[in-house]
Amino acid sequence: MERRKVKILSTGKYLPKQRVTAKELGSRLGIPESWIEKKSGVMVRHFVEDETASYMGAIAAQNALELGGLCLGDIDCIIATSAVPEQGIPCTAALIQKQLGGGDSGIPAFDINSSCLSFIVGLDMASYLICANRYQRILLVASEIATNGLNWEDKESCTLFGDGAAAVIVTPTGLNENSHILTANMETYSKGAHLTECRGAGNKYHPQEYGENPQYFQFRMDGRAVYRLSAAVLPDFMQRLLKSCELHLTDIKMVIPHQASLMAMRLMSKQLHLPPEKVMVIAHNHGNTIAASVPMALHEAIVQGKISRGDRILLLGTSAGFSVGGIVLEY
Amino acid sequence: MERRKVKILSTGKYLPKQRVTAKELGSRLGIPESWIEKKSGVMVRHFVEDETASYMGAIAAQNALELGGLCLGDIDCIIATSAVPEQGIPCTAALIQKQLGGGDSGIPAFDINSSCLSFIVGLDMASYLICANRYQRILLVASEIATNGLNWEDKESCTLFGDGAAAVIVTPTGLNENSHILTANMETYSKGAHLTECRGAGNKYHPQEYGENPQYFQFRMDGRAVYRLSAAVLPDFMQRLLKSCELHLTDIKMVIPHQASLMAMRLMSKQLHLPPEKVMVIAHNHGNTIAASVPMALHEAIVQGKISRGDRILLLGTSAGFSVGGIVLEY
Repeated sequence: MERRKVKILSTGKYLPKQRVTAKELGSRLGIPESWIEKKSGVMVRHFVEDETASYMGAIAAQNALELGGLCLGDIDCIIATSAVPEQGIPCTAALIQKQLGGGDSGIPAFDINSSCLSFIVGLDMASYLICANRYQRILLVASEIATNGLNWEDKESCTLFGDGAAAVIVTPTGLNENSHILTANMETYSKGAHLTECRGAGNKYHPQEYGENPQYFQFRMDGRAVYRLSAAVLPDFMQRLLKSCELHLTDIKMVIPHQASLMAMRLMSKQLHLPPEKVMVIAHNHGNTIAASVPMALHEAIVQGKISRGDRILLLGTSAGFSVGGIVLEY
Repeated sequence: MERRKVKILSTGKYLPKQRVTAKELGSRLGIPESWIEKKSGVMVRHFVEDETASYMGAIAAQNALELGGLCLGDIDCIIATSAVPEQGIPCTAALIQKQLGGGDSGIPAFDINSSCLSFIVGLDMASYLICANRYQRILLVASEIATNGLNWEDKESCTLFGDGAAAVIVTPTGLNENSHILTANMETYSKGAHLTECRGAGNKYHPQEYGENPQYFQFRMDGRAVYRLSAAVLPDFMQRLLKSCELHLTDIKMVIPHQASLMAMRLMSKQLHLPPEKVMVIAHNHGNTIAASVPMALHEAIVQGKISRGDRILLLGTSAGFSVGGIVLEY
């Protein structure tokens, strides 16, 4: 597979104003902090107050623009990579463009969706647009409000998720620069399509059915079955991914996984023989922020100095679908 | 701009079982057939009975596979390009893969969304994946159930829409073949983001709010304002698009527009100085099938013999966002 001359120029992040500890959430739900610590490991997450997904996405994008020394006028494509859109219509990327003040800009804006893998697939797609010279500076934004769709009766899932946004700007690799996408892959096994789902809110079950069937509009997951499917698919997937760029796990500085839960990441690390120090974890103080979790973790890895230019990193995740996806890149 | 060696190998279409005439719909709604004829011009549309979007998409895809002499195992990527997903989670492409019997296939499946332009943007993106040799045979599927979200009090919009699906398979252009994508472009002007919208069903207004605010979950459009914005943007957009591939309108055999409504297409043809015989129209007997309308019209243009291999065609549309998009290709 050919190396793609694509560089992650800069990243940005936004966390909602309302910071909620496991202790606070526990007393709200009538469960002990220690139960949350054991089950999800999420000790702090942020919940939106009045923030919308496009507002959060725009702040994260501004952050990335500033760190990249750019302004909105330098961006020639906006791709929203959230699992859940802000509105039924139009796409979230258009709403983010509006929040950024680009209403007259004409910058093309569209969404890519593969649930929790949306950012990984979006970055993969964007890289081809950069390489083909279609666009020069693409802004990817993942912004998620998980709290709106949670089932507060299901203590396990509602103590796991958090809201937030991240943005990433990609550009062509400059002369004398070493940033590359080395390989990327995605596989979808739809035998698991209904293991993780929210059946409603699309054209199958219209919100008018909410009164009769509220459960259609809640997130639902058969965690045990997803784990089994992931265990059957992920190790081989990663082996093939590394083989396609002729690397070994020892060549990878940091794995940046989807922050499904602390337990899920521990199980994944075990399956893939990843030493803990190579796994970027932000779930403990961010929660699972759905498709925003990978770019938020990437941003944190950069900001915390855990990765530097030239380091080889692996973005890796699973999603509803059931899909697995990964990108190996030289940062 | 470089010509992309991408060929539309085959197309397929599915219309729901329930065929509804303007007369039948008029008597259901208590309005005369002539009013519908004058306002929307849609004399026949199809409504789903028990069909789901993924079911319709899978039948259209089977149709395209058969016409292309392929089976599912030949497909290496599935992209759903509908404006509205079937479920909140997972993406529609995974559900289509499942309907096609590909549950164990691993074929990557994800969605691209830019409302009514989703297919045009999806085809544009897919072409880069083909050119870069990432995938060899990509299946694009647009499948829409408009009827589920309509406001039956709004006679103008509810007499306009129809349900249906189309599928398109793209491959690299073979030796001695002349199929190419000559150019493509998209522009988003989000000052018009709220002129066409369904505010609910995403993370802004959860379906649990349906009881209090049903209007949030209905499609709403300020037709006059959209027309003004379209008139201001579309003619220049098309001029630039043709200029970028050094063609004139006279070089184009057929324009395949988004089938917004008969009136919208007449106004668009006038704005763009398109002679009626160059404009592919299926709205009169299909209705506006949202993002499925362009690939359905493309399929009909091929099946009806209105375009042949080597003909230059222009796919063109506007969408909520507000966006305009177009692709010039040699079929």
